[in-house]
Amino acid sequence: MNKLYIVLLFITFQTVAQTDDENRMRTIYDAALVDGKAYNWLNYLSNQIGGRLSGSVQAQQAVDYTKAQMDSLGLDRVWLQPVIVPKWVRGTPEFAYIETSPGVTSNVPICALGGSVATGGRGIKAQVIEVSGIEELKSLGKEKISGKIVFFNRPMNASLIDTFDAYSGCVDQRYSGAAEAAKYEALGVIVRSMNLRQDDYPHTGAMSYGDIPVEDRLPAAAISTNGADFLSTTLKLNPDLNFFFKLNCKQLEDVESFNVIGEIKGSTNPEEIMVVGGHLDSWDLGDGSHDDGAGCVQSMEVLRLLKVSGYKPKRTIRAVLFMNEENGLRGGNKYAEIAESKNENHVFALESDSGGFTPRGFSFDCSDQNLKQAQGWARLFEPYYVHLFVKGYAGADIGPLKNDKMVMAGLQPDSQRYFDHHHAENDTFEHVNRRELELGAASMASLVYLFDKYGVIDSN
Amino acid sequence: MNKLYIVLLFITFQTVAQTDDENRMRTIYDAALVDGKAYNWLNYLSNQIGGRLSGSVQAQQAVDYTKAQMDSLGLDRVWLQPVIVPKWVRGTPEFAYIETSPGVTSNVPICALGGSVATGGRGIKAQVIEVSGIEELKSLGKEKISGKIVFFNRPMNASLIDTFDAYSGCVDQRYSGAAEAAKYEALGVIVRSMNLRQDDYPHTGAMSYGDIPVEDRLPAAAISTNGADFLSTTLKLNPDLNFFFKLNCKQLEDVESFNVIGEIKGSTNPEEIMVVGGHLDSWDLGDGSHDDGAGCVQSMEVLRLLKVSGYKPKRTIRAVLFMNEENGLRGGNKYAEIAESKNENHVFALESDSGGFTPRGFSFDCSDQNLKQAQGWARLFEPYYVHLFVKGYAGADIGPLKNDKMVMAGLQPDSQRYFDHHHAENDTFEHVNRRELELGAASMASLVYLFDKYGVIDSN
Repeated sequence: MNKLYIVLLFITFQTVAQTDDENRMRTIYDAALVDGKAYNWLNYLSNQIGGRLSGSVQAQQAVDYTKAQMDSLGLDRVWLQPVIVPKWVRGTPEFAYIETSPGVTSNVPICALGGSVATGGRGIKAQVIEVSGIEELKSLGKEKISGKIVFFNRPMNASLIDTFDAYSGCVDQRYSGAAEAAKYEALGVIVRSMNLRQDDYPHTGAMSYGDIPVEDRLPAAAISTNGADFLSTTLKLNPDLNFFFKLNCKQLEDVESFNVIGEIKGSTNPEEIMVVGGHLDSWDLGDGSHDDGAGCVQSMEVLRLLKVSGYKPKRTIRAVLFMNEENGLRGGNKYAEIAESKNENHVFALESDSGGFTPRGFSFDCSDQNLKQAQGWARLFEPYYVHLFVKGYAGADIGPLKNDKMVMAGLQPDSQRYFDHHHAENDTFEHVNRRELELGAASMASLVYLFDKYGVIDSN
Repeated sequence: MNKLYIVLLFITFQTVAQTDDENRMRTIYDAALVDGKAYNWLNYLSNQIGGRLSGSVQAQQAVDYTKAQMDSLGLDRVWLQPVIVPKWVRGTPEFAYIETSPGVTSNVPICALGGSVATGGRGIKAQVIEVSGIEELKSLGKEKISGKIVFFNRPMNASLIDTFDAYSGCVDQRYSGAAEAAKYEALGVIVRSMNLRQDDYPHTGAMSYGDIPVEDRLPAAAISTNGADFLSTTLKLNPDLNFFFKLNCKQLEDVESFNVIGEIKGSTNPEEIMVVGGHLDSWDLGDGSHDDGAGCVQSMEVLRLLKVSGYKPKRTIRAVLFMNEENGLRGGNKYAEIAESKNENHVFALESDSGGFTPRGFSFDCSDQNLKQAQGWARLFEPYYVHLFVKGYAGADIGPLKNDKMVMAGLQPDSQRYFDHHHAENDTFEHVNRRELELGAASMASLVYLFDKYGVIDSN
């Protein structure tokens, strides 16, 4: 064979392979957009079940429902993986007001942060000290803080294009604010909601007390962005105002729950496992449609799309609906623990936990060589306007699985609207667009297809 | 100078230019995202004024409001350009029902298509013939059509990724259906709404009777997608059912209206004019937030962003809010006519008329060389996730301006949600996300900045 012949053969081979891939992806996207199931599944999860906080009746209903749906897909195996989860309950709705002079009060919308202790039946009323973050708290010290309610009010930075960057720049106030404020003898903590929009929804979310004993923990609540601005303005006019709030939440005993897992067994390399997942639990205020009902139904849809497109994976593909991402990550940890104990060989994991919005691409936590491998497929995604193939964070639930050889990936949907809804009462089904959700599922299925077909390049 | 020195000098120059451009664009995006005015302007247009059909009181209020706002921006010139526009009015709400047997009726949501004649006070009741489009209508012929209501029910193709492609593939039913059906002596026309979603909103939009005399015109209405499916299913069970509808619309005398124009005069090449625009009129059912209040406030914001970023354009930059795009294009035609009569030298025109969603890029109707020029700036847009620089349609309002030397460009926002709202009652302000709108304005301002700074390459 002369050289030219080899080159021609190579070009022909490449063209055929590309056409195969193009056709397969077209079939996948068609099946998602024309006859997708993700949206109807999400409708049930959101509107028939609702918010699915770990340990709740709704979380168990979601386990039962998604298992039944996966059972109906004709997969090779569907099972529940037991995991013990924390059970925190909000109790009766929270209540707060600003008192500018005795008897002159204005109510403001708040909600307990997830994991907060209650205020006690009489609530807490005290003066307020506003800070822009933990640094300012430290600089003020015990003299200024003691006996007061600390109001963390640093807003998300609107100039950042990726709203997750703006979130990262603020969330320490929510996560660690109460633990830090306790060091200076504060009485409680109010945190500006992690929301780029001005509105009246308080946004909950996880917090940690570190190793502070239960009896020394400060109650902590989020206030809506409008409420935060109102409080801040009122404080400037009247620094001595009182703030009252009452939280009725409670940490109960841990209970048993489940990760829900469905699997298509690999035809030639069944011992190599590829995971696609989201988390089935959600916060309790909304119905958890974007966070992360979307990721769950997309993960289920990946299996369905591979099946209806007629593709027989070489490797074992698992959809894993993780329990308890929001306040414990017990499901992710349990899945990784079992995988290790069984000596399972996970080669790839993809998480969708950034909302059901138009997919822009994927972030990869993997070797440069594996990233390049994915970037080589960018052209195939162009017709679907999927254009980001970048290094980055993949996802919380799949995190504990991570090793140096694996490809860890995260779906990157358009981020502009996410924090309008995140952890708030308005994370609801009507804010999910059917096509955006379906395009996400098809993009995930396509990436799984490509990594299954070509394998994860061994970069060691 | 040796060659290396020249190369180094060139690299240095390039780097400085890129850094300048990077900084300028960063300033523009910051100003849009942190202190943007577009969203508040749109709030007023949508919620204080509302739907702005050509010739309506609201259209005039929109002219007055946007002129006053541009007057407040410290531009070099703001003026109204008179244009005579058609005035079609909907009248009292439309009404329709399916009658499966005498006295057994189900109401369905319809709305008159823009420009339709009325049905007369007693409405029209007749049997229905469902067709998938104009081809099928022709193949059925007069025998099957005569005396019936023609029901055009070809849905938008959900598998197309760009929803505007799906729209293009269907809109002939709405635009020409009545004129075609008249040839076969139909009594009226019902068209499935141009909507990819199943819901209860009928979507209006322009139609044409061609040169059919007024007395021979058929009344034409859109039916919601749910209504269309219901009618289609019911027809299969009962092909002899009757359909009743009543439209109360009317074509009145033409009236005077205005294009609203604001201008920053160019510092070194004032005779070269760059236009950025949207259309100020809208349909009457919703408040026209996406179509095209968004494009108008973004165009105004482009001028403001250039000013607050401290940039002094070399060329004359005009924001043009065109009147009567929806049912006549009189504003676009008038603007081009005046430009020609004054021998103005337009070098660039950019339109935003695809909704206020996250900007994905721009389509260009220009020479290959000019397209390459724009594609050369793609890297500058990467931090803002603006990635499409493609050949394509630019926009209706700027269309009449077009010549071979110009760069015609259209903002390309994410298209997935657009047709959920397009021309329907739910094209309203609450469906516009502030950041998505602002990112669009900043992207437009950045493209204008680059074409102004570097000039449009003469490709002749």
